[in-house]
Amino acid sequence: VEGFSFAHDVRVRFAETDAQGIAHHAAFLVWLEEARIAYLDRFTGGYEHIRARGYEALTTGVHLEYRSAAAFHDLLSVWTRCTDVRGARFRYEYRVERDGEVVAYGYTTHATVDGATHRPTRVPAWLIDAISAAEERPAS
Amino acid sequence: VEGFSFAHDVRVRFAETDAQGIAHHAAFLVWLEEARIAYLDRFTGGYEHIRARGYEALTTGVHLEYRSAAAFHDLLSVWTRCTDVRGARFRYEYRVERDGEVVAYGYTTHATVDGATHRPTRVPAWLIDAISAAEERPAS
Amino acid sequence: VEGFSFAHDVRVRFAETDAQGIAHHAAFLVWLEEARIAYLDRFTGGYEHIRARGYEALTTGVHLEYRSAAAFHDLLSVWTRCTDVRGARFRYEYRVERDGEVVAYGYTTHATVDGATHRPTRVPAWLIDAISAAEERPAS
Amino acid sequence: VEGFSFAHDVRVRFAETDAQGIAHHAAFLVWLEEARIAYLDRFTGGYEHIRARGYEALTTGVHLEYRSAAAFHDLLSVWTRCTDVRGARFRYEYRVERDGEVVAYGYTTHATVDGATHRPTRVPAWLIDAISAAEERPAS
Repeated sequence: VEGFSFAHDVRVRFAETDAQGIAHHAAFLVWLEEARIAYLDRFTGGYEHIRARGYEALTTGVHLEYRSAAAFHDLLSVWTRCTDVRGARFRYEYRVERDGEVVAYGYTTHATVDGATHRPTRVPAWLIDAISAAEERPAS
Repeated sequence: VEGFSFAHDVRVRFAETDAQGIAHHAAFLVWLEEARIAYLDRFTGGYEHIRARGYEALTTGVHLEYRSAAAFHDLLSVWTRCTDVRGARFRYEYRVERDGEVVAYGYTTHATVDGATHRPTRVPAWLIDAISAAEERPAS
Repeated sequence: VEGFSFAHDVRVRFAETDAQGIAHHAAFLVWLEEARIAYLDRFTGGYEHIRARGYEALTTGVHLEYRSAAAFHDLLSVWTRCTDVRGARFRYEYRVERDGEVVAYGYTTHATVDGATHRPTRVPAWLIDAISAAEERPAS
Repeated sequence: VEGFSFAHDVRVRFAETDAQGIAHHAAFLVWLEEARIAYLDRFTGGYEHIRARGYEALTTGVHLEYRSAAAFHDLLSVWTRCTDVRGARFRYEYRVERDGEVVAYGYTTHATVDGATHRPTRVPAWLIDAISAAEERPAS
């Protein structure tokens, strides 16, 4: 997908559907988070590694547009990129697709905090470097 | 709260917390939905009434900023108002507070669709009227 | 309800329904937990009080029979009692009703553990006393 | 695993953890369901196929013992078998493992119902045959 080089696939669980017969809109936030975790696994040593070093990443904003309903058992690709790392803040952008069709798109904002105090703390240099390296790869 | 005259209270469930020790950010979407349902109950005859007449309301967008973490058992007031009803679309705005402190704020967008076909259909006049009446009340 | 003197009410959320048009069976576990928390609030000073004293309660078993589907917006009464406190273990029993009809019933088993180590530790005497007092009240 | 020849793997999501720092006990029910769906995909043409033919499967009972906490990002194998198909009822048994360690075990009971009326209806012969064939395979 143009501008994205990493995707994480999720299959819609039955428990994630609602009485409208489609995936509940809140389930998308869980999938975006799972995609971020997979992204960190791939490029940075993983979120557990980050937590082990005393950091947490909080979600500070969610902006998502739904374009098409997702149904039970649909296989969705969550295209994910990390952008705008500055100070204690960073941002992820997403395009959720099913067979090339856009199902949803948007972005989330985050802040790194100290794991013990939940006070904002700069994104550590090794994490910035890992993300930069990931985002500078040629798109697949 | 300035500009809002309806609030729905929720208490953070233990199941809604995560390993950061705070309410997971996706739980907020469920609370906003519960607040919309309570709003419709209060002012329009309820969502079931709307569904019984052959309409569904889809969520088409979510925009939420998190300002403060919510903890297990916190009592949150979800201030809620419905705005911008036009054609098949409408919008809800929110301020989530705890003891007067802003925890989160934002808005969601929605479309009314035919319950059987999920095709967009104009918000019915009786529902527009009910919402208008609700929003024109003097703030409490 | 025969044998129960405490009930906690929950209203089925839309997010808790699934594509069968009924409440998903996993949602019941969340309601039972909410009922246990409400029980502890009423009779023991609350779960937060227990956690603040360095204890956690783990769920070690779940046994639930579903007799009738619950629908969106149903108001359910979760009748709840605590039984068989011994050593580090205790048990809750439930009857979930809607307008006097049994929707589900069963029990969960729990263990108190040290909050830091998650090692089993005896249910503290003050908590046993509070539960005993609660369960010896005349049924309402 | 002794007596089981099918396993479905799940990775614990961050959203599935709670403030005790472990996977919430209700998440296990969602994983068991996902394992049942994967089982049906593998052996019977899939749950959607069953629904398309006018059947639904309701969950009528849940019995689960938790032996060890699951943590964020743990990779769990849900060993799954279908047993005791009779009339409109059937039963699934599970062993949830992590690196060969038992994390939880138990069973769920189910009833096939007519998709439109939710009335009990016999498990169709083609589904019984598919399950029998699956369970008579030599264990892997």
